[in-house]
Amino acid sequence: MTATTRIYTAGMVVIGDEILSGRTHDKNIAQVASWLQVQGIRLTEVRVVADDMEAIAAAVNALRTQHDYLFTTGGIGPTHDDITVDAVALALGVPVIVHPEAHAILADYYKDKEGGLTEARLRMARTPEGADLIPNRMSGAPGIKVANVFLMAGVPGITAQMLEALTGTLEGGLPLLTDTVGGWIKESEVADLLRATEKAHPGCQIGSYPFFREGRTGANFVVRSTDAALLAVCMDALCLGLEERGFAFTRGGI
Amino acid sequence: MTATTRIYTAGMVVIGDEILSGRTHDKNIAQVASWLQVQGIRLTEVRVVADDMEAIAAAVNALRTQHDYLFTTGGIGPTHDDITVDAVALALGVPVIVHPEAHAILADYYKDKEGGLTEARLRMARTPEGADLIPNRMSGAPGIKVANVFLMAGVPGITAQMLEALTGTLEGGLPLLTDTVGGWIKESEVADLLRATEKAHPGCQIGSYPFFREGRTGANFVVRSTDAALLAVCMDALCLGLEERGFAFTRGGI
Repeated sequence: MTATTRIYTAGMVVIGDEILSGRTHDKNIAQVASWLQVQGIRLTEVRVVADDMEAIAAAVNALRTQHDYLFTTGGIGPTHDDITVDAVALALGVPVIVHPEAHAILADYYKDKEGGLTEARLRMARTPEGADLIPNRMSGAPGIKVANVFLMAGVPGITAQMLEALTGTLEGGLPLLTDTVGGWIKESEVADLLRATEKAHPGCQIGSYPFFREGRTGANFVVRSTDAALLAVCMDALCLGLEERGFAFTRGGI
Repeated sequence: MTATTRIYTAGMVVIGDEILSGRTHDKNIAQVASWLQVQGIRLTEVRVVADDMEAIAAAVNALRTQHDYLFTTGGIGPTHDDITVDAVALALGVPVIVHPEAHAILADYYKDKEGGLTEARLRMARTPEGADLIPNRMSGAPGIKVANVFLMAGVPGITAQMLEALTGTLEGGLPLLTDTVGGWIKESEVADLLRATEKAHPGCQIGSYPFFREGRTGANFVVRSTDAALLAVCMDALCLGLEERGFAFTRGGI
């Protein structure tokens, strides 16, 4: 195995009662997942936990030790239910400090704003000891990097900015390439083809994603590989198989 | 503690490479979470795992033993990447069988359809031994209940039907009631009020959910309690506090 074939993986902990109550539809899993794909890092497991110190710390410790990177979203704001910093510090066994740089950023951000840098706002300068900051132009309050753990916001627009700031800074492996073909095909009609095609093309995985749309049944078939040439050969074989069976299909998916 | 105050909890395992790659935005977490709320069951942890036998079995075993109920979504279709039945059987230590009733349902469903009941379609009649079925009018293929584990579809519309079939059949506790107030308020300006109000009202939790919308900052504050009277008193106190501080707000949230 050469260095370029090493697979980098990440875990993710989504923190928030509002996700578990169904009140808020999480948008961060898909956002972080897509971003990681581009960095050549595979998101391997996500855990969604409540605003509960022990639950957060347990999930953080389980996933940070299993993966190259761990991302958390949620719970880094100014209110009493924002306890992610404390929970991650607990998980890492380090104290919580007021980060001088974060303090300066917030003092500057709030200097012209009503109320100024209140005690509540200063909570957003607290980090586990030994942390670096992840810039956030939108609201001043930075994200936090400590060891291999990245603490991001719950608000998707802010997390998007933090991811942008991190783009290209994390070591990754070969990105997983994908290609899709789809049609108004019942997946059960081509299950044997999918299985045989995957088996005949080591290094490629085929996923089948059925849907109901406009009152009809269809499916998209996604081929994944880190090798562009293998991917192309596998996709061609799959399309040939669909053609031979008389199915209409669309490259790129429907 | 009387019987009515027992808290019932559920875990959930979302299965699918497509969620972890960011290709598909999960809709089942919010759907299952909202449905559980109405049943008086609290969704306490969700894990999203890949189409990987060991990963699914490990997540299923961790959560089914910690909670009254466990729900899985995804991986119960007819294709080679649908391995949830096998993984749950592995987790429970029981064999996989062809369920006679599921076999009959599928035979009936496919009797007029092209291809009939193929080997691939018959895969959807496989269950862990000792399972009951969860009806699904949309595609014939049933969901599966085995011990305290409920296997549901990945396609949200099908899972919706399975949840409907289960409505009122699971023992739950008191539902968690919620009430919301919101406004164009920076949560950092009211963090002290939120904390003090929650502290003064045992039996209630207050969550703060900030957002950026139309270029402005706002937040919704959600009070939760299993006791309607406590909830009302806490919400009144919170609104009074917002009023005293000169904030405009909307009952029900914005």
